[in-house]
Amino acid sequence: MTAEIAATVALARCEYLNRFSAHPSRLERAYLTPQHRGANELVEGWLRELGMQTWTDSAGNQWGRIEGAEPGLPALVLGSHLDTVPDGGSYDGMLGVAVALAVVEGLRDRIHELPFALEIVGFSDHEGTRFATPMLGSSAVAGLWDDDWWDLRDQQGATVLEAFRQWGLDPRRIGEAARQPQDLVGFLEAHVESGTVLEAAGKSLGVVTSTASVRRYVVNLVGEARHGGGTAHRDRKDALVGASLAIAEIDRLATNSEGTATVGQINVLPGGVNVIVGRADFSVEVRHRSDKQLEELWAQISAAVTSIAAERGLRAAWGQVHDAPAVDLSGWLQDCLSEALVTTGEDEPLRLAATSAHDASALAAITDVAMLLIRSVDGIGHHPAEDVRAGDVASAIATMTEVVWAVAR
Amino acid sequence: MTAEIAATVALARCEYLNRFSAHPSRLERAYLTPQHRGANELVEGWLRELGMQTWTDSAGNQWGRIEGAEPGLPALVLGSHLDTVPDGGSYDGMLGVAVALAVVEGLRDRIHELPFALEIVGFSDHEGTRFATPMLGSSAVAGLWDDDWWDLRDQQGATVLEAFRQWGLDPRRIGEAARQPQDLVGFLEAHVESGTVLEAAGKSLGVVTSTASVRRYVVNLVGEARHGGGTAHRDRKDALVGASLAIAEIDRLATNSEGTATVGQINVLPGGVNVIVGRADFSVEVRHRSDKQLEELWAQISAAVTSIAAERGLRAAWGQVHDAPAVDLSGWLQDCLSEALVTTGEDEPLRLAATSAHDASALAAITDVAMLLIRSVDGIGHHPAEDVRAGDVASAIATMTEVVWAVAR
Repeated sequence: MTAEIAATVALARCEYLNRFSAHPSRLERAYLTPQHRGANELVEGWLRELGMQTWTDSAGNQWGRIEGAEPGLPALVLGSHLDTVPDGGSYDGMLGVAVALAVVEGLRDRIHELPFALEIVGFSDHEGTRFATPMLGSSAVAGLWDDDWWDLRDQQGATVLEAFRQWGLDPRRIGEAARQPQDLVGFLEAHVESGTVLEAAGKSLGVVTSTASVRRYVVNLVGEARHGGGTAHRDRKDALVGASLAIAEIDRLATNSEGTATVGQINVLPGGVNVIVGRADFSVEVRHRSDKQLEELWAQISAAVTSIAAERGLRAAWGQVHDAPAVDLSGWLQDCLSEALVTTGEDEPLRLAATSAHDASALAAITDVAMLLIRSVDGIGHHPAEDVRAGDVASAIATMTEVVWAVAR
Repeated sequence: MTAEIAATVALARCEYLNRFSAHPSRLERAYLTPQHRGANELVEGWLRELGMQTWTDSAGNQWGRIEGAEPGLPALVLGSHLDTVPDGGSYDGMLGVAVALAVVEGLRDRIHELPFALEIVGFSDHEGTRFATPMLGSSAVAGLWDDDWWDLRDQQGATVLEAFRQWGLDPRRIGEAARQPQDLVGFLEAHVESGTVLEAAGKSLGVVTSTASVRRYVVNLVGEARHGGGTAHRDRKDALVGASLAIAEIDRLATNSEGTATVGQINVLPGGVNVIVGRADFSVEVRHRSDKQLEELWAQISAAVTSIAAERGLRAAWGQVHDAPAVDLSGWLQDCLSEALVTTGEDEPLRLAATSAHDASALAAITDVAMLLIRSVDGIGHHPAEDVRAGDVASAIATMTEVVWAVAR
């Protein structure tokens, strides 16, 4: 099979996964839903066609394994995540799994030459769409499961614990999802870039040096719900006006920094069209290249929220709901990726810092990890218009195939 | 029965109605819901105890009627609404119905002396909680039903048409809810004040000169949903940042005017914690003493929205979803109310402009209307802490009883 045909198949597999969506007209595949099960089963079928042994682990991640030169060797793991954001695109995550499938398919006749087993993983939760806390699936694999997570609730009020049971998973066995360092050679993730660095540099692919520092907060502002007609503006404690001033200021502070701060969710109570908002809750996701720079940006943001709340007579509080520190990826695996890029015709491999946390950030706790970024068309990510070029995917498959040999050496 | 006992009963009836709520812990009674039916049935029982003939009209309003000196005379209608805002208080609307019940109860032995029939109405929809368009019930009674309303949807996507059928109402008979001017003497509404004018003036009660001009709009801002990590702030078209700038400016403009502009609802899409908001929709309710002043304030607001959207690369649009022009209430009925206030011991009756539209505004299209405002504790309205003093309610019952005789004269 040529790399072009392999790329076409990989893209078709991503499209095919779109059928497992909570909504007919927009893609949403969240953790421990029927769509999650559908995607796992489809991928499991593809893994079996490649002669791989398959299993779903105790955190809902889908795995496949094929033995190398002899049974029971440590594994080089390829893969990414199978879940999506609400109204997401077809490639973020899924493309990394599809590329991994293409790599194993291309290597099939020579896997007995490898000094390690090959595994493919489709992580069950990277985006945190359902429980607002991301990377539940890959964190379980990294042995980083936090028992506080059992009580996280989705928007319908169901807890993670309840969702595990309803999906047919035994919460008491969560620890079994954790992989042991001695059983792993490393983890290699191919992922579509969520930005325009590669496009601006005219490169199909890039080698990630580090994943970003990412924290998520929920901010609460509490004022006073009153009748919108009878309360003069100077007597109001309007939590939404306070939140609006804060969100505008957060955007201004992040614009002046090198980082980002995104408010993607806001909820107001009581929610009557003629009632002053008494409580506003909003999410803030802050990202920066280093943990220190992130902390500086968040210090500015939290000071601004405090001061706006004081001016407006509101009570302000916030909680951190997620923390993915910046992770420097494995130097020798980065070198293997660069070597593979040169082998496949790229004279000057580009190295770049990722602007996202990735499942690779979690896996770094237990094994050496590296990431290959694939150029996105116009840098659009987390959106139905997200797209990649077939030629770039073909290059990614060729490079990821070469890197397996580079690791073997 | 003394006025004090009558007031206690009226307040108890308001509390008793709280049992019909969509939520166990907060009061919400919306149009064409099981709670609406429960409230109607409870009120119908009270009407029957007073010897009144009862019916639910074709828009779900609850009525009672007792004949005067002879059967079939035009009716003086007393009442208010039985629906609430989300997380509302116990008195806004319901107190007017409870006062009407107390008035008829007090007059029961002398109703045969009246040159008109007495009717009590509990309007089914004033607040517009379910379909975002208020006064559906009283508009039907006023013959102002708009066929566009059949297609309004609630947050679950059900239309008014579907809700009518599900509740057991025949949409084809909506016209039968309209009352004819020749069958009516007038409409008198007692209502808790949603402000602090009476409290500041040290008055229990006040006579309304006019209802406010009220318009409701929905504003849509459309930008670009993108990955919150990979998109630099200067490249963003963040619809929530645009909405935040607009909401802060709306508050500033309204503060500088004599009117109010309340943003009580906001919804953002796609709603992912790590996705830039691509679309933000928010409500704006603008109120002013006159239609002209309201138009001036809205012109400033819409110009600000347009300019913010242009600066931020967003598309802006808005639609008006409700319009209640300011209504001057009936002069002779205001005089009757003032006369009744003097009779019951108020030396200097206070007249004031209402800061809300009321069902009375709709009824003014078909009959003479007047309103008695009852002092609110601390001016809190549309909130669980909404409260009234029993003594003020006793005065309201006495005054509304006297005004029946004043109208008779």
